[in-house]
Amino acid sequence: MNTARRESLNPDIPSLPARLGLDAIIAMSPENFAYVSGAHIITVGLIRARQAFAVIPKKGAPELIVCKIERAHAESESWIQNLNTYIEFEDNPIDVLVQTLKKLGLARATIGMDNDYLPVSSHERLMYLLPELKLVNTTEDLAAIRAIKSRAELDILEKAEKATHRAVLEAMQASKLGDTEREMSNKIADGILRYGADGLRHMVFASGERTRIAHAMPTDRVPRESELIRFDVGGAYGFFSSDFARTYSAGNATRLQRDTYAALQKVHTALIDGIRPGMLGEDVFFLSRDEFKKQGLKFHMPHVGHSFGIEAHERPMMRPGEKLPLRAGMAINIEPNVFDELNDFYHVEDLVEVTEQGARVLSLELAPAELPVIGNALKGN
Amino acid sequence: MNTARRESLNPDIPSLPARLGLDAIIAMSPENFAYVSGAHIITVGLIRARQAFAVIPKKGAPELIVCKIERAHAESESWIQNLNTYIEFEDNPIDVLVQTLKKLGLARATIGMDNDYLPVSSHERLMYLLPELKLVNTTEDLAAIRAIKSRAELDILEKAEKATHRAVLEAMQASKLGDTEREMSNKIADGILRYGADGLRHMVFASGERTRIAHAMPTDRVPRESELIRFDVGGAYGFFSSDFARTYSAGNATRLQRDTYAALQKVHTALIDGIRPGMLGEDVFFLSRDEFKKQGLKFHMPHVGHSFGIEAHERPMMRPGEKLPLRAGMAINIEPNVFDELNDFYHVEDLVEVTEQGARVLSLELAPAELPVIGNALKGN
Repeated sequence: MNTARRESLNPDIPSLPARLGLDAIIAMSPENFAYVSGAHIITVGLIRARQAFAVIPKKGAPELIVCKIERAHAESESWIQNLNTYIEFEDNPIDVLVQTLKKLGLARATIGMDNDYLPVSSHERLMYLLPELKLVNTTEDLAAIRAIKSRAELDILEKAEKATHRAVLEAMQASKLGDTEREMSNKIADGILRYGADGLRHMVFASGERTRIAHAMPTDRVPRESELIRFDVGGAYGFFSSDFARTYSAGNATRLQRDTYAALQKVHTALIDGIRPGMLGEDVFFLSRDEFKKQGLKFHMPHVGHSFGIEAHERPMMRPGEKLPLRAGMAINIEPNVFDELNDFYHVEDLVEVTEQGARVLSLELAPAELPVIGNALKGN
Repeated sequence: MNTARRESLNPDIPSLPARLGLDAIIAMSPENFAYVSGAHIITVGLIRARQAFAVIPKKGAPELIVCKIERAHAESESWIQNLNTYIEFEDNPIDVLVQTLKKLGLARATIGMDNDYLPVSSHERLMYLLPELKLVNTTEDLAAIRAIKSRAELDILEKAEKATHRAVLEAMQASKLGDTEREMSNKIADGILRYGADGLRHMVFASGERTRIAHAMPTDRVPRESELIRFDVGGAYGFFSSDFARTYSAGNATRLQRDTYAALQKVHTALIDGIRPGMLGEDVFFLSRDEFKKQGLKFHMPHVGHSFGIEAHERPMMRPGEKLPLRAGMAINIEPNVFDELNDFYHVEDLVEVTEQGARVLSLELAPAELPVIGNALKGN
């Protein structure tokens, strides 16, 4: 059963406590536990009470704490060999964490913790049992490590993005006037699974006036001629996923729709062409604002993209005030969107890798220059 | 656009603060925000920083706080009309919560909060800005309200369970020796979507020795003759979902497998037959322990089932120490499982409604008495 590699996914993890001047780091959010431990235990996110912790001490061997039910899973996937388990409902997971910290001589230590995740009630128990413990919020430090992808991680993300894109193209080619939103979105979902996803992450799908609801779910509504269809979808690939958005016409698009889409796509292309390592997240945002102006489009977005990984939105975010720079090895979703004068909503999203030379597109190709039409999707791309 | 009902999903919500002797309740966990507000905004769970709050004061009108991007969504789905928004990355959502509490005269109030969800870092900011606020953990109080389902909610859960069951039967009927785990699980997923789900919630699928990993994901492994296939799957239906598990044989089952399965299924049937309103959660657990003994099966489980709703596991849990009683209107998953002497793992799970007369099965029918075989699934059920 024991097929796991016995080394950290990322070599910077074991040395992180020393680098940050901490006695240890504890990873417990679903994304950080998965990344630090290497074990993708879905209940850590799905059943929030089933807490799991990866403890990385500055000195000594790392320890895992998982629900006893998940022991075989942790053993088969994690590089961390010291396993501590708790029996659900009999033990409080925090109590087993406390025992583990005591065993490691860390009862009075200064420890990095996911304080953007640790719930107040768990924190109270932890501090009651270890009143001299000092917790430091290391949410951002772990996020910064996760942001730089290894080649293996980029390969997963590229494969996922291309598979999702392919599923979308075939589904939109096979869709026709008279289909419901749900029939169309199911075609996409089927393709995402057929091309290798373990599951679906998100399936936002809307037509007509529903396009303006940021994250509407598919319904039995039938898109009418001259309406827009907009979707933002993702499959699950281990603890990674895909994130891909397009806007289509149901046919017989209006001039306003064609012009607005074409202008948005020009912004999109200019943004991706403009990406260079060293730019700050906010630089990409400001570039986007300039390009919107150039195209005569109304600019309304709080961000125009985000780093992407285990979490849906990671830093750097392409937003004002983001002082983190883009670096080679980051995977970034660029996703400009716009409302037209009639309040229809347009959105395109592609994933790129930041390289020393600029952005490398990880989807099959960028969103097409002209508004694509259902039933005619393969031509448009 | 405004199609929402203007009343709470559950009439007990507006009166909850008064009943608990609190000045207000704040719902912010993804499940409680969805339930209390009526708005299913997927980013509340998917992008954890995009916090949302439903504030229900003892006196006065309730207020929502959502990210500005989600305003149209909240307007179209929630019964709560007073909307406060924050601009992502410019405003801290906690600051807008603080303004809202001040507006309601609640700066020094005693307020019920999801303390099992509220992150430490958000809590610190809230208490820094409103040092005289008193927070009480109302996680369990809201869970208790959610546990009793309305007829409309039970209808959604029953429809979801039956649709998922139908998808499973057809997929296992269409599966054959030589198919990979992933090919089989994709057939299930396709059916779940085709029969009306918005997306997939979970897709645990394993064969052979992988069955013992509690929540393994499907792989390209090909189940061999005389191996078990075990899965635990669920689709998403608005903010509800399905949760359904079965064990199959890949063909030519061993005597041990057939006997172990048949005994487990007898336990399963006895448990469901034994359910009565008024039993405590732990009574169902103890009944299960007795039935395992009667069947000569090794008993290893920390729980044998759970209340089901927006969360995957809700209280009452069928576990030792659970003093909450079953009540009419609850939806309960019964899911006994067992390891045989060769460490193969068996699991069946059906959803039932607790009625005054006992349990009403919400799947198409209970797990079959004899170990079903792929390619022969419809006969077995």
